[in-house]
Order: sequence, then C-alpha cells, then structure tokens
Amino acid sequence: MPYTAELIAVGTELLLGEIANTDAQVISRGLSGLGINVFYHTVVGDNPARLRQAVDIARSRADIIITTGGLGPTCDDLTKTVLAAAFGKELVYNEEAARRLEDYFARSGRPLTENNYQQAYLPQGCTPFQNNWGTALGCGFACDGVRVVMLPGPPSECAPMFRQCALPYLADLADGVIYSRSLRIFGRGESAVEALLRDRMNAMENPTLAPYAKEGEVELRLTARGDTEAAAQALIAPEEAALRAMLGDLVYGADEDSLEGVCLALLRERGLTLSAAESCTGGLVAQRITALPGASAVFKGGVVSYWSEVKAGVLGVPEDMLEEQGAVSAPVARAMARGVRALMGTDLAISVTGVAGPDRDERDNPVGLVYIGLAWDGGDYVREICNPGPRERIRRLAANHGFDLVRRKVLGLGLEL
Amino acid sequence: MPYTAELIAVGTELLLGEIANTDAQVISRGLSGLGINVFYHTVVGDNPARLRQAVDIARSRADIIITTGGLGPTCDDLTKTVLAAAFGKELVYNEEAARRLEDYFARSGRPLTENNYQQAYLPQGCTPFQNNWGTALGCGFACDGVRVVMLPGPPSECAPMFRQCALPYLADLADGVIYSRSLRIFGRGESAVEALLRDRMNAMENPTLAPYAKEGEVELRLTARGDTEAAAQALIAPEEAALRAMLGDLVYGADEDSLEGVCLALLRERGLTLSAAESCTGGLVAQRITALPGASAVFKGGVVSYWSEVKAGVLGVPEDMLEEQGAVSAPVARAMARGVRALMGTDLAISVTGVAGPDRDERDNPVGLVYIGLAWDGGDYVREICNPGPRERIRRLAANHGFDLVRRKVLGLGLEL
Repeated sequence: MPYTAELIAVGTELLLGEIANTDAQVISRGLSGLGINVFYHTVVGDNPARLRQAVDIARSRADIIITTGGLGPTCDDLTKTVLAAAFGKELVYNEEAARRLEDYFARSGRPLTENNYQQAYLPQGCTPFQNNWGTALGCGFACDGVRVVMLPGPPSECAPMFRQCALPYLADLADGVIYSRSLRIFGRGESAVEALLRDRMNAMENPTLAPYAKEGEVELRLTARGDTEAAAQALIAPEEAALRAMLGDLVYGADEDSLEGVCLALLRERGLTLSAAESCTGGLVAQRITALPGASAVFKGGVVSYWSEVKAGVLGVPEDMLEEQGAVSAPVARAMARGVRALMGTDLAISVTGVAGPDRDERDNPVGLVYIGLAWDGGDYVREICNPGPRERIRRLAANHGFDLVRRKVLGLGLEL
Repeated sequence: MPYTAELIAVGTELLLGEIANTDAQVISRGLSGLGINVFYHTVVGDNPARLRQAVDIARSRADIIITTGGLGPTCDDLTKTVLAAAFGKELVYNEEAARRLEDYFARSGRPLTENNYQQAYLPQGCTPFQNNWGTALGCGFACDGVRVVMLPGPPSECAPMFRQCALPYLADLADGVIYSRSLRIFGRGESAVEALLRDRMNAMENPTLAPYAKEGEVELRLTARGDTEAAAQALIAPEEAALRAMLGDLVYGADEDSLEGVCLALLRERGLTLSAAESCTGGLVAQRITALPGASAVFKGGVVSYWSEVKAGVLGVPEDMLEEQGAVSAPVARAMARGVRALMGTDLAISVTGVAGPDRDERDNPVGLVYIGLAWDGGDYVREICNPGPRERIRRLAANHGFDLVRRKVLGLGLEL
C-alpha cells in the first residue's frame, strides 16, 4: 500500500484570500513523483486550537503530515509549538541553527533582533532542514508511526527546501513512482494542439496525455506509473518520440525548459552573442534571459527605447521612418534590430515594438499589434502578431516570439510560423 | 457572533499539484468582506468517502459550507450526489436547467452529449445558480442550521458565479464587515518592524495589526471589524496615523501600491522623466515600470549594459575605472547613472551593478553585493547593499532600492536608509 500524506498550511493570509496556497501545489507534485498519495490539503489560520484540531484529524488518517508556514520569528508563528505539543516533543535550542542565523544577518548587514532566535528552537530529535533561502528553519521527525515535516511558508523558501531537504527525507517511503514528462510547444494554441491529438489522447491509459495552456505556450504532459523511474520512463519514451514526430519544430523543449533557456543554451553552444532593442516589452526580453545564470556568456546588453527619440538617437532609426511609418511598424522593428546589433556588436539582435495597451496608440493601432524583429549578419526578418489581451500577456507573448525567432534562426529552421 | 464558513474544494487535480486552489482565494476574500470568518479550507479528491468525511467534519464546526468543483458532466463529478446524501436531500431534474444547457450547446455549436444532462439534477428545494460562463449549474440550500453552497471548479466559472449568485445568497448572514488596510514599508525587515511594534500589536484588538514579509519589503496590515465599512474604516484611521508617525518615511504607500507605481505617480505629478542603466538586474527596473499603463509619460528608456564593453562604449564609463575598480563598484554605479542620464536626456536616472549569483564574480565579490546609483541635475548618490539569497530575490531587491532612491529624491527625503 502506498503511503498517504496530508498537507496543512498555516496562515491567516490564506483564509483571508490574500494569497493562494501554491506551496500545496509544489509539494503535491513532488509527493506524487514518489508515488505517495495526497488525500487532503487543509488550511488553518494562525490559531493554536484550530491548528491542533487539524493536526489531530490528519494524524488519524495519514502517514505523513507536511505543514507549511508559521515558522517565522513573529508571535503568530506557532506551528512548531503546536506540532511539538501534539506529538509530545520538547523544543530544544539548536546551537548550529542559531549560529547560522547570526551569520545570515551578519552577511546581510541587518540587525539580528531577539525574536529571531525563536527560529533556532526545534523539536527534540528532529532532522533540521537548513534554510539557504531565508531564515526560518524547517525540520522532519517521526513519532507514533507518523512522519512530520515542517516547511516555511514563503514560496521562495518552501519550494527549494521541499526539494532539497524534505524529498530526500521522505525518499524511503516511496512506492513505485509516477513519472511525468512535458513537451513544450510554441506557435499553436491549446485547442489546436488538442484537436490534433484528441483521438490519441483518448486511446491512451499509461502513460496518459494532457495539454495545458501556459503563458502564451502549450505544455503537453505525459504521465506514467511504474515500479521504478526507469520503468515509467520506458513507457513514456515511445509516446514522446511519436508526439515529436507529429509536432515537428513546434516542440521547442521539455520539462523545465523555457524559450529563453533554450536560446541561451543554443547560443552558448555555438559561441554566438545576442542583444535586444525593446519598446513595448520595456526590458522584458533582456530581463528574462538575464534571469538565467550564465546569461553573460551570450547576452551583451540591450536598449529599452520607450520613446521615439531614443529609437532615433540611440538606435539610429531614421526620423523620417518613425514619422511616416509610425513607431509600431515592420520597418521600425527592422531598423531597431539592426541598430542595436550594430551598437552592441552582437551576432544576433531581437527587437520588439507594439501596442501593449490598455489603449490603442496615437495612430489608432489596435492593442496587441506587435512587430518582432531579428537581425543577423547580412539579413533580418520581422514577424507581425496581433493578439488582444491584457498588457502583461501581450508583453510576455511578444518576448516569447523574440526568443522563438532566435531559436529558429540558430537551428536553421524556417522563421515563419 | 459572526458566522463561520469552511471551503471544500473537490478535485484530484489539486491533490496532484496540477493547479493551485485559487478558487479558495477568491471566495475567502469575498466572505471576509461580509464579515464571515473562514476558519478552514479543505481539499479532497474525486472520492465519495473522503468527500463525505470532509463534509461531516465541516458541518460539525461551520455555519456555511462552500464546495468548489465536481459539478461537471463526467463520472468523477460527484459533489452534488455526496452533499445531497449528507444532508438527506434528493436530486431532482430541473427542466429550466436542462433547457439552458441545450441552449448553451446550440449556441456554441458543440453536440450535447447525454452525460451533460446530469448537470440538470439539483438538490430538492435549492436555489439554482445559473452558469453564464460554462455548463455546470451551482446552487445553495439550507439544512439543519447549515447553509450549503456549491460552485463549479474552473476559476473562470467559479469566480463570477460566486460574486453574482453566492454572495447575494449569503448576504443575510453578513455580520458587519471586515475592512483591511495595508501600509507598505521599504527599508526594514519584518523582524525589525515587528520588534518596533510588538507591544502595540499585542495590545490591539480591533483593529488588529500584523506584519508580513513580501518580496523584499514589509506589509503591515490593519484589520478592523465594524457594522459598516465606514465604521471599520473609522477604527483604522487613527491607528494608521499613529503607525505612519512612528515609521515615518519607511512607509512608501498603502494597499495595492508598489514601489514602481509610487515612483511613476510622483514623477508624473512633477513632470519629471526617468531612465535606467542596468547590469545585474538585466532590464528588471525598466520592465517593472513599463509594466504599468502610462509609464511612457515618464520613462524614456534604458540601457542593459551586461558586458563591460557596453558600460564603456554605450554609457561612457571610463575603461580605466572598470579596470581598476571593477564593474561592481560604487564609482561604476555612479558613472552608469550619469551616463544613461546624459544619453537619454532625463531628469533622473537609476543604475544597478552587482553580483546576482549563483557564483561570486571574477573579483571574488560576494553574491548579493549590489551598488544602486541615482543621478540628477547636479548630483548623484550610490547605495551599497549586501544580501545573499537566490538570484531572483537579489535582482528584485536591487530594483526595489532603485525605485526607493527615486521616491526619496523626488520627495526631498534623505537618501540613506
């Protein structure tokens, strides 16, 4: 019988609807990969009696209890106290944890206030989980046949601590595995992909196949259950090959790949450099590629030419072209890409100019009209798209198209979609 | 005594971590506005026995049970069956609901398969909630002192049905209102703010006061309960004034304000323009301010000078300075800010240069060391920070400091923290 887990999130901000319980999503996905069944999520506020009740219910029906939140330094952070009491454990001062806290604050130059030391107390006999992403320690312990894991609430601390500390701590409870593999697709919508694959999807049982629309692209997920990861992977491999054959160069990557990550890897392999000239995306192309470690190997820099005088003065777009064609036009996109490529001295250059909204531009161009340019040694290309939507989505999609052009160029694929 | 509500989300996709429970967030926020306390969220899979257990626990401790999900046409949609059984109600065929389903499918041009008619069955005596955003009907009924509301799972159907049908259905249970007001603080950590305010916090009952750490800043939330929104606001106003007096210029805004939004508004009011020169933030400053509609009134453009040769060639940072001081240094931050201000012809200019990690730079500067510069007509200033952490957080915090410098300069405040 596979083990069962129950997640308990602690935080009044969840019950007030200020944030969604995204920690539960990350943890559930990870447990599912170990073949551990998650049967319940519970959310309670910063209230000791109600947290205790949730813990008592959970321990009566689950083998594993994972809490998130309530581990911080303030007085409404009560998870450790309640869990320790529920399982009859004392909280013990952990010297090493205290020293790490002191180090953390010393490095950050902030004063270590007394209440922070609360975070150095842990249930007796537990396995401490160091927090390399913040200050609140997590931990795991076993008691009365239940495995208890406590993780901090902020998603930027919870997710890495879960992966790096909690998953290994729970690995001995794994029962077979569920293995998922996602193909990442750019250039077609979810319903078009689904229509193409519907018969295949309905006929599949292990693995299963499902499409998900995600931020201007489509994720196609294969999920298999097997005794081992290798067995589950072996079930997926032929299906993945068949899908790749059907979808061709629409598949740009798999799993955690991103369009910018694929670009970075391709450019790096070939020793090519990139720059970007951005109007409506306002720095999003540059920001996305430089968010990746190692971006400096290929990305030299960019210009955010939000005003026309910057397009002319810094990028050298001819003023009469801006006058006659307007800033949102294919010729300007082309001139921006060529201009930034010359300025930065790069092999390739992306440009973006368009109307991100919420209003039409002064020439009455519709919201969502965007020109994405690519310049290379001896040539250039401009793609026009027009998808109305919220500002954020228009910008994200435009940046996606920029990275797609780079990917297609470097791989020698056609630039048209 | 205010009424209490419990939310039960039904869906295996939540327990597998495929989606986050965003319905709970929307509903919690709405109930909180009615003065209804939400004490628990529960998530269960498409399993009748476990759903029944969750319902039995919920009815023993809540006045209102709101379910989301499991109302669709497929055989794993079991919420109505289980809830009807738990409260001893029969499911009755609803003619009007069936006709609306037929209409919906006729309009969308899709065939109405037989299983869709399952959606036309509703608990006897309930108030049906028409679904204008999809096919699954919702409903509300009262039984044994408990009010039960069932809503569809897809967020695009759940949110509007909750607002347009469920909130009016529950309005007679409203107990005054809960009103929240958040002060937004930059420049001190959560624990420092809490240490400063602990006595005050502990002494407060209505409103209550709680600090939350959020993406490199702190949110300080006042929550009051009153008979009307005006009454609750009146309780909050003097506390807000007292907190503002204590915290001074650390308070940069309230509620939905962001650092970049406050900058944009201040610059716009005064008719000032801004540019940015970014190294380690790689375009994040530009991207954040241009994400806001109306940014073009103040933001002329920016340069992402990721490579030193771009700092020298485009921004005019002296090459011997880059050589001697290194790219991550106060003089270079100053020269970048002055350089981009001259290039773009703006009133103010931000610069950022630092080590975002994951590795130390070639001069062995530590991860998290960042210099943030500000240049204006006749002067400049550089702030040094050093907070280790993940790349994303270092970049976000550095951008926050850039916006903080602009805010302080425009308001005539001291630039030191």
